[in-house]
Amino acid sequence: MNATSNNLVIGFIGLGAMGEGMVTNLLAAGHAVRVYNRSAEKAAASVAKGAVQSDTPFAAAQDADVVITMLSNDAVLESVTLTENGVLAALKPGAVHLSMSTVSPDTSRKLAKLHADKGAHLLAAPVFGRPDMAAAKKLWICVSGHAPSIAIARPVLEAMSQGIFEFGDDPGAANVVKLSGNFMIASCVETMAEVATLAEKNGIKPEAVLGMLTSTIFACPMYQRYGELILKQQYEPGFKLSLGFKDMNLIQKVALESATPMPFLGIVQQRYLSAMAEGREGQDWSAIALNARHDAGLPVQRQF
Amino acid sequence: MNATSNNLVIGFIGLGAMGEGMVTNLLAAGHAVRVYNRSAEKAAASVAKGAVQSDTPFAAAQDADVVITMLSNDAVLESVTLTENGVLAALKPGAVHLSMSTVSPDTSRKLAKLHADKGAHLLAAPVFGRPDMAAAKKLWICVSGHAPSIAIARPVLEAMSQGIFEFGDDPGAANVVKLSGNFMIASCVETMAEVATLAEKNGIKPEAVLGMLTSTIFACPMYQRYGELILKQQYEPGFKLSLGFKDMNLIQKVALESATPMPFLGIVQQRYLSAMAEGREGQDWSAIALNARHDAGLPVQRQF
Amino acid sequence: MNATSNNLVIGFIGLGAMGEGMVTNLLAAGHAVRVYNRSAEKAAASVAKGAVQSDTPFAAAQDADVVITMLSNDAVLESVTLTENGVLAALKPGAVHLSMSTVSPDTSRKLAKLHADKGAHLLAAPVFGRPDMAAAKKLWICVSGHAPSIAIARPVLEAMSQGIFEFGDDPGAANVVKLSGNFMIASCVETMAEVATLAEKNGIKPEAVLGMLTSTIFACPMYQRYGELILKQQYEPGFKLSLGFKDMNLIQKVALESATPMPFLGIVQQRYLSAMAEGREGQDWSAIALNARHDAGLPVQRQF
Amino acid sequence: MNATSNNLVIGFIGLGAMGEGMVTNLLAAGHAVRVYNRSAEKAAASVAKGAVQSDTPFAAAQDADVVITMLSNDAVLESVTLTENGVLAALKPGAVHLSMSTVSPDTSRKLAKLHADKGAHLLAAPVFGRPDMAAAKKLWICVSGHAPSIAIARPVLEAMSQGIFEFGDDPGAANVVKLSGNFMIASCVETMAEVATLAEKNGIKPEAVLGMLTSTIFACPMYQRYGELILKQQYEPGFKLSLGFKDMNLIQKVALESATPMPFLGIVQQRYLSAMAEGREGQDWSAIALNARHDAGLPVQRQF
Repeated sequence: MNATSNNLVIGFIGLGAMGEGMVTNLLAAGHAVRVYNRSAEKAAASVAKGAVQSDTPFAAAQDADVVITMLSNDAVLESVTLTENGVLAALKPGAVHLSMSTVSPDTSRKLAKLHADKGAHLLAAPVFGRPDMAAAKKLWICVSGHAPSIAIARPVLEAMSQGIFEFGDDPGAANVVKLSGNFMIASCVETMAEVATLAEKNGIKPEAVLGMLTSTIFACPMYQRYGELILKQQYEPGFKLSLGFKDMNLIQKVALESATPMPFLGIVQQRYLSAMAEGREGQDWSAIALNARHDAGLPVQRQF
Repeated sequence: MNATSNNLVIGFIGLGAMGEGMVTNLLAAGHAVRVYNRSAEKAAASVAKGAVQSDTPFAAAQDADVVITMLSNDAVLESVTLTENGVLAALKPGAVHLSMSTVSPDTSRKLAKLHADKGAHLLAAPVFGRPDMAAAKKLWICVSGHAPSIAIARPVLEAMSQGIFEFGDDPGAANVVKLSGNFMIASCVETMAEVATLAEKNGIKPEAVLGMLTSTIFACPMYQRYGELILKQQYEPGFKLSLGFKDMNLIQKVALESATPMPFLGIVQQRYLSAMAEGREGQDWSAIALNARHDAGLPVQRQF
Repeated sequence: MNATSNNLVIGFIGLGAMGEGMVTNLLAAGHAVRVYNRSAEKAAASVAKGAVQSDTPFAAAQDADVVITMLSNDAVLESVTLTENGVLAALKPGAVHLSMSTVSPDTSRKLAKLHADKGAHLLAAPVFGRPDMAAAKKLWICVSGHAPSIAIARPVLEAMSQGIFEFGDDPGAANVVKLSGNFMIASCVETMAEVATLAEKNGIKPEAVLGMLTSTIFACPMYQRYGELILKQQYEPGFKLSLGFKDMNLIQKVALESATPMPFLGIVQQRYLSAMAEGREGQDWSAIALNARHDAGLPVQRQF
Repeated sequence: MNATSNNLVIGFIGLGAMGEGMVTNLLAAGHAVRVYNRSAEKAAASVAKGAVQSDTPFAAAQDADVVITMLSNDAVLESVTLTENGVLAALKPGAVHLSMSTVSPDTSRKLAKLHADKGAHLLAAPVFGRPDMAAAKKLWICVSGHAPSIAIARPVLEAMSQGIFEFGDDPGAANVVKLSGNFMIASCVETMAEVATLAEKNGIKPEAVLGMLTSTIFACPMYQRYGELILKQQYEPGFKLSLGFKDMNLIQKVALESATPMPFLGIVQQRYLSAMAEGREGQDWSAIALNARHDAGLPVQRQF
């Protein structure tokens, strides 16, 4: 949490559950942070810790060394970036826009080009981790785009994460990696849902099966976290199912454009589509596990 | 590898790559081990370490406290067990037959009943782990069946493993768990194959993508081991593809009989079927990853 | 319906909904028919038309020129054929056993060999058509096996059908064709179910869409018959869903043994599996169309 | 081809293989036809039969009662319609724009709204049929949109078709129907490809199997036409595979937006994607049948 001599002026736009923790860590590292959020009242916690509140994205970005956007989808990112009072109009030459939202690689490429035309640089820098990991400085970040700008942004990324992975010059590359990771999570959920259902239909305790496998050959965070959610059927909103659906559609677009058949993705996308059709968009995105139960004739709410 | 006061007489049948390491650990734990293998010359290494060679399964099993079978499929297990010179005819009352092969739950149930009729007990005790793990006493064992017999067999299982998981009275249950684990591995291979292919077709290094994901949110043995095989395209026989195909067919039989739809299993089974059709049954079972490459128009042998 | 000079002695075993109409047509063609059915009272209608009732399969088959079996599955066929009082024990040299049930090709091959050992011949001769078509002499028959026996059996087949198609010497071939046809019907049902659901979810009348397509580019019996069932959701037992499931499993076995990946079959099999899991085995086999509705969040019973 | 007293002035834009036959039939019905094509020389045949050549879409559409567009995709349709020298700028109040291309329903809805703002009307009126059927006045047309405009356009549609089907007020509805029909064709191709492959791998002549089934229970134009292409492996460009791929993507967009899971569509889309990845976009769209052969290890070019 030590401040360095190279402290930067940072504009931070988007104070959702993730953003707040990230701002806290940036402040702790000694950076000057200006924050903007559409609902201004959400900025209070950050201001209390030392951030300065801005009235517009433009104000947050003006004269900043680095601007970070952490927003819910492509449309919001484009709007915040390209509007008259937006980020791009305010950036000084050489400034770096760290786009940390989960968006499509095409959006990153398009925006990166518009930034370059102005002498600034947009990097894609999406993250893995939930709000508790953002607060604990435990995010994993994948970053790609203009190499010298990555060097500039590195201390900022380090202040928010436990690890940074670079993916070259293409500003869309990091988005492909992030979407791939989310697809892998969805696949791991579907796999465990099928196994848990098979166990239950064969009179074997699902918690015993997943308990063994996720503590031995699949002993890693995703299997453990989502295995537990599946077993407890705790599908209160964590990461919304509608956002998972959006991400599967984004990666499918990448697959279609690059002519990459992905049959598992096809299955998973159908699961999300079915859950959306049933009005379950507000559940945690791992609730696609309920489809396997339903298709096997099990009561969707398991009895304990 | 301290010998205990409760040393047992063990018959061990099936000295393949796995069996040899397991016998070594049983001897090291102080048990008396009699070994049988169809090709008798394979017993030499075990004999050198102190095992006694038997001429028939019957001879290996006679008067043994515990008989272990470690064979390649259901048919061989049934033959070794039920033939005139076989295990079942030799077992003394109260003896325990540890069936450690990957076979169908129905086979275990059928054989367990035949054992019980004779006053002996068959337990299903399949393992996770490759030959190096067998040699290092690092297997994971799932066991199910007659509870008092599990208690008798426990020191034997402990002598070969780093962990033992019990799944109740049904002698088929442990087989369902083992097959489920193998399905999860096949799913993890397919998932990574799709992701690696998508990366390559988008100009991103697959080793960078899998490198990140298998060292962070998917940091567990299966993703790391198979991620590496996929990236290096090292498909020399480890665990044969034809055996993986057999296991997918066995678990699908369980799914059909228990009315459990498993769409991921459907995809994976098609992959194995296609690999078999192409004459690739001798490759490592993770070589189903080549199908994703082919379908995406990439050269099946990657150029480095 | 003209009797020919070559009238034959025929044993007919299995007087279900199909068998009764077939016997009627055989009698009308002038053949002497001896009938056997496990529930003897089902023979009454055939006897009233001139058939002679037999007490055992053996009695029906003894001295017959041709024996026809029309049974529900492989197990019943094997039992009726191989039991002590069964068909095979009774057959005279040169007699032809027309196996018209929908069974696996392996069963036909195995039984054909046993017949040949006795100097008789089993042909696979499964049919397309429902009971009304059997009664109206409108069946389509696919036949394969020993060529001279096909020549002998031809007038018998002609007496029951509107068309006969030969598939060579392999006694299993006609079964593969029959199973393929049933798979094609299941695929056509799934296709129309998806289209009808898409229409309804887009505010378009499904009956208008299927009405157009099944009267133009898909104007053929299967699309019209099943299109109507799907639209009316009339799933009272016609051809039982559990039998459709059995057939998909039989063809999948053929696919696995011949290393033929069939992704559409994989989807359809999951549909049947899910319907079985929901306890809908007694509906018409086209009721797999309900799954598409369910997955799209539509009420499973459509409101008219 | 009798001229009626209600002859209309028609602008026709897009003289590809389909358009030329359609124009011929419009002229034969007594209508005055002005034609426009980007490559002007393609108009020669139509002009020789009595059409008048226009220099721009605007000129073809000016003062016309009905304007017909028959173009390759959404982008071309939008460009021809909305450009300064385009159709919409030229339409007189009450004129009807018959959009007969295969495009997305959203494009029809958007353009219909823009037409209505000007007092004109766009109807979606896509067709089923290949160029030979267009020339023979044998098209099937599905039409939807503003009802009074359908009444106006009816004699024009009748002059080109053997049947017209109406789908209500939504200008996108007819596009959903057209895309559904194309999906059904792709499904029928995949189904027959799997069956033909299974037959060949079981030593049965695929032409015998498809020959039987497409002349009996599947005796309809699509099974017969595509069955023949699959058997002969004649995949010279008829309807280009890249256009089939486009259509599957369009219908998938409809499915995603209306939350309609369509697993068969998922499979078919993967087939097109794989064919595109292999550089086969120029083959006939039924060439997805080659994938089933490949996956089963058969030589992709069949030996005769």
